Amino acid sequence: MRVVSLSAALAGALAAVGATQPDMWAVYDAVLGAAKYVDLSHTIEPAMPVWRGFGNITFQPATNKLTGKPFTYAEDLFEATAYALTTDQLGTQLDSPAHFSPWRAASDEIPATYALSKLVVIDVSDKVATNASYGLSVADIREWERRHGRIPRRSVVFVRSDWSRAWPAVNTDVFPQVLLEAVKFLHLERGILFHGHEPLDADMTPAFDAESWVLRNGYAQAEGVANLHMVAPTGCLLSTGFPKFRGGLGNYVRFVAVCAQSWPHGVQPSAVAEAPMPAYARPLVWDAARGYRARE
Amino acid sequence: MRVVSLSAALAGALAAVGATQPDMWAVYDAVLGAAKYVDLSHTIEPAMPVWRGFGNITFQPATNKLTGKPFTYAEDLFEATAYALTTDQLGTQLDSPAHFSPWRAASDEIPATYALSKLVVIDVSDKVATNASYGLSVADIREWERRHGRIPRRSVVFVRSDWSRAWPAVNTDVFPQVLLEAVKFLHLERGILFHGHEPLDADMTPAFDAESWVLRNGYAQAEGVANLHMVAPTGCLLSTGFPKFRGGLGNYVRFVAVCAQSWPHGVQPSAVAEAPMPAYARPLVWDAARGYRARE
Repeated sequence: MRVVSLSAALAGALAAVGATQPDMWAVYDAVLGAAKYVDLSHTIEPAMPVWRGFGNITFQPATNKLTGKPFTYAEDLFEATAYALTTDQLGTQLDSPAHFSPWRAASDEIPATYALSKLVVIDVSDKVATNASYGLSVADIREWERRHGRIPRRSVVFVRSDWSRAWPAVNTDVFPQVLLEAVKFLHLERGILFHGHEPLDADMTPAFDAESWVLRNGYAQAEGVANLHMVAPTGCLLSTGFPKFRGGLGNYVRFVAVCAQSWPHGVQPSAVAEAPMPAYARPLVWDAARGYRARE
Repeated sequence: MRVVSLSAALAGALAAVGATQPDMWAVYDAVLGAAKYVDLSHTIEPAMPVWRGFGNITFQPATNKLTGKPFTYAEDLFEATAYALTTDQLGTQLDSPAHFSPWRAASDEIPATYALSKLVVIDVSDKVATNASYGLSVADIREWERRHGRIPRRSVVFVRSDWSRAWPAVNTDVFPQVLLEAVKFLHLERGILFHGHEPLDADMTPAFDAESWVLRNGYAQAEGVANLHMVAPTGCLLSTGFPKFRGGLGNYVRFVAVCAQSWPHGVQPSAVAEAPMPAYARPLVWDAARGYRARE
């Protein structure tokens, strides 16, 4: 297999230059710097889909607590934004196990090693196209493995359903599911790091069967994942980053897939204006009707 | 130089197995999976240092908007947290250029390629020890380069001052600085991606000289960076992840350094309970006095 032989070749290359541990910068130069980066997170904004029990979030221009006035570029040199977030279960997020069990890890107890992993994408969008509440099964996972090989230990497994391609006009009442048997198999038989899905819940059962089992057993799970139609089924990495709220039960998370240079989707660092980023033709101004800063 | 020869060896290894583009999973197996991960972000909590003009943030147990009652594990199966965040300039954060200029990029306009970069750490903690407002100069950068080689293009450059080691009991009135000449040199002469510092501002000038130049010219900058005493001056990677708020001017960011296996600090994926994460002896409960969920 190509994966195995390349890994061995890489180890040989390191030995050849007398490096028992590789310099990460060389890895960046040889591989990561030319990779294709695919953003898998939704933008957080007031009008985004959220369960009605949580209510909507709001943004406001930040005010100076010493004067009571909003900051302005003209008078303060800068502006800032205040956020009223009714829930930590919002948009693209990573559930802390403590969301369902106080005995399990909160946001600040999830290890920093979650930052990087292998990414597996299992595509059930064809089945979802004819059954909007289709649930990923063990049979689907085994079928994927027949085509792509065994799911690696510690990989992150995202389930592609294409549900999120209608975002924000998604159906939050009927949605593609991940069956309890599937999450059990992925964790107990394959030893994955965590799984993720496009909808805002794992399944439609009244007791949240899959999510309950996952979180109460100390595993994290990702929800609201986007753009999985732009990621290869195997071979990409996943970059995972979220601010660490003390005792937090959910995490506003940025997922970025890092795929091979030859992959047709995503952007390369050299193909985009990173530093400096461009000047825009229209300024960003507070839009009270929409409740956020916009250029239109 | 070791970096160059390893990079060439890596390219040779890829060619030897007939792979023009490397499989990222092989890179994970050979290098990233055994690396040391160092968390460089502070935890967000109500009592954290923040400029008094912004005021304090607060957490609350999330309430069900349909019943008006807080969610409970007993009745709802889950709990959640609501956040009132008075500013997006909080803790470890990445400034969007639009923080100082409405013509420049907001949070959702920063490219996904920011997820990974090389990391340079310039240590001026010895000078800060005798001068609490010492400012990083071009001479300091040139001295670093005499020892470690030229700062790579597109690297992230973090300035170690050890100011953050007293966190949360830090001095926000007098703090280590980054001089305007230093950020100009790093961007214009070295082409870095962005720089970062431990304090919550780049310098103590009334017009924010360094920060103004950086942001108005379309560059991002990191503030409130932690744990730089645990990172090597060269050779580590940086993982950068932040939720994307529509039109946002600052970003609650997670920085994680990814260093060589031989580096003495940080944790390896295999050395920590990742999945499942452990069960704790005490449950997480809402602590009204501290304003967050805690185990004590």
